[in-house]
Amino acid sequence: MNKPQKIKIPADALRDMIRAMFEKLGASTEDAATVADVLVWANLRGVDSHGISRIPRYVEMFESGEANARPAMKVAYPGAAVVTIDADSAPGPVAMHRAALEAIAVGRKTGVAWAAVRGTVHTGAIGYYVSEVADAGMIGIGLVAGVPNMAYAGSNVAGVATSPIAIAVPSQQGTVLLDMATAVIALGKIAQYRQSGTPLEPGMALTAAGEPTTDPLLAEIPLPMGGAKGAGLSLMIEFLTSVLVGNPIVAEFHTGTPHGQRHRQNGAIIAVDVGAFGAPANFGLGVVAALNAIKALPRVAGVSDILYPGERGSRTFEERNRRGVPIAPGPWQKLCKDAQKLGVMIPEPAPAG
Amino acid sequence: MNKPQKIKIPADALRDMIRAMFEKLGASTEDAATVADVLVWANLRGVDSHGISRIPRYVEMFESGEANARPAMKVAYPGAAVVTIDADSAPGPVAMHRAALEAIAVGRKTGVAWAAVRGTVHTGAIGYYVSEVADAGMIGIGLVAGVPNMAYAGSNVAGVATSPIAIAVPSQQGTVLLDMATAVIALGKIAQYRQSGTPLEPGMALTAAGEPTTDPLLAEIPLPMGGAKGAGLSLMIEFLTSVLVGNPIVAEFHTGTPHGQRHRQNGAIIAVDVGAFGAPANFGLGVVAALNAIKALPRVAGVSDILYPGERGSRTFEERNRRGVPIAPGPWQKLCKDAQKLGVMIPEPAPAG
Repeated sequence: MNKPQKIKIPADALRDMIRAMFEKLGASTEDAATVADVLVWANLRGVDSHGISRIPRYVEMFESGEANARPAMKVAYPGAAVVTIDADSAPGPVAMHRAALEAIAVGRKTGVAWAAVRGTVHTGAIGYYVSEVADAGMIGIGLVAGVPNMAYAGSNVAGVATSPIAIAVPSQQGTVLLDMATAVIALGKIAQYRQSGTPLEPGMALTAAGEPTTDPLLAEIPLPMGGAKGAGLSLMIEFLTSVLVGNPIVAEFHTGTPHGQRHRQNGAIIAVDVGAFGAPANFGLGVVAALNAIKALPRVAGVSDILYPGERGSRTFEERNRRGVPIAPGPWQKLCKDAQKLGVMIPEPAPAG
Repeated sequence: MNKPQKIKIPADALRDMIRAMFEKLGASTEDAATVADVLVWANLRGVDSHGISRIPRYVEMFESGEANARPAMKVAYPGAAVVTIDADSAPGPVAMHRAALEAIAVGRKTGVAWAAVRGTVHTGAIGYYVSEVADAGMIGIGLVAGVPNMAYAGSNVAGVATSPIAIAVPSQQGTVLLDMATAVIALGKIAQYRQSGTPLEPGMALTAAGEPTTDPLLAEIPLPMGGAKGAGLSLMIEFLTSVLVGNPIVAEFHTGTPHGQRHRQNGAIIAVDVGAFGAPANFGLGVVAALNAIKALPRVAGVSDILYPGERGSRTFEERNRRGVPIAPGPWQKLCKDAQKLGVMIPEPAPAG
């Protein structure tokens, strides 16, 4: 396929634009900056499905009242190692970034902290929040549950969510970041297959009618990773987030309560202070030693490099930070139109090359 | 295949026999009871690969000094929510059971507790320890890392361990327990395929030489669940356990340090007090509501029942508790021989039927 050349926007300029847009949409300067940083971070890491492409949906959610641009978040400390954040339908980045900051602060005192987020909307690339914890020299673990969109093992309808889990650890070579959905393939990845016209592999997804398919245009319901394992892990994440904070999603979705199908998410950020278990420098060196061992493993034919979790994303991050964030002409024009409507300046693309 | 009839031993009698054997092997009465309880629990749940079949290996490890029947475990509290247990090569059940008790006690005070275990041996069915936490009304999360035996994505040698993760939550309908290896198939399961002569599915395992195989007699190296996902999750579990407590396994295994290949494991038990986040009864009811929704999902052709995590194990547990633990004649004779050598009484099998 002869694809139109993508436009490249310098990350700083893109961030400024998005921040200005969210301010115009009603967010505080601080919250707007957080949303912009999280969305552009996803694009920089190559997770375009979780980046600025989400902005039209945010506009929609602010208008419909599903999301709240000026949330009155309530933070409580009901246990020495526990923080609860009632998000009041704040944008996911606002609520989850706050959870990361709280988990870091409490974890420094107690060694481990669990910050639970109740009732936010689309949390985006949760690797961001656990990376914030790793940047503070701690281990970050993130969980998110949402409205069912993945098949449960043995069924062929959307039974549970593609609930992601992310883990970030600090090291002298930078953060190592695992960020994975509990599905064989994330919905955002299916969208990428659709755009490029690539067929899916068998066992990745079902049609809306519940039939197996490899056609990305028909694929609607991703299958759980490892069958019962991914399905079970997703259900457990619902328990560890939604049910724990008394905001169940799976049960309400299926029993058809008034807001059962409404978009909403719950999450958790856990911070583990490696300094509570031993010398922090030793932890980082131990991580580096393991990465070196993994990189040096014998490779199967056709594999040029063994990657550790998040390595590809880190490389994309470096490159896009240097050369700009690539955006397809269609979505870029749409974004510019939205920006103009809000009276926000459009940045210049980066020079080609 | 015309298989010889299994002998069924009543669980209590089997437990008494194993406890007496471990006492004779040098363990304290309390520790011997813990090991017996954990091993027989695995058999009761149908995880025969992690049950009494492990006893000959324990005998070996006590003799070689790899395991310590009278460990001097050191417990420390370096943070308000942190417990570290230096296991002194205690049998896994002794160290991990202690971790569960410590996590429960500390978690009650702080809301969340992380008990790290350094330097134990074969931890067995880790579902046991997280179920102990759930029995105390809390969420239990368990992680274990060991010597590499699973391929890392892109490689075809044992690069990382099949590191399991287990999560147990309490509810009014009993504990819901997810207990999964990060491999497509656990080594114990391969052994079961081998015994029954059933071929593996493609993509489950490699031969010792790193070639794909479906022959259970040749399968040596399980493949990671979901490719990069399972491999990455296993590596992260090494960081969250071994590297955190300064007892790295993956790096030492591959760089060939003197004890790099020696059998040893590190683990963690995390306890989350649901009462710190809301009313405990509501948590359990929320779990039950989600289970009911999952059980009621439409089923694909050929599936008679949608199972929640641990449901099959719970059913097997009930049945074997009633009818006795089935053991094949060969392993039973071997166990009896070992028992007689130690001067331990052999229990009567349960009446047939």
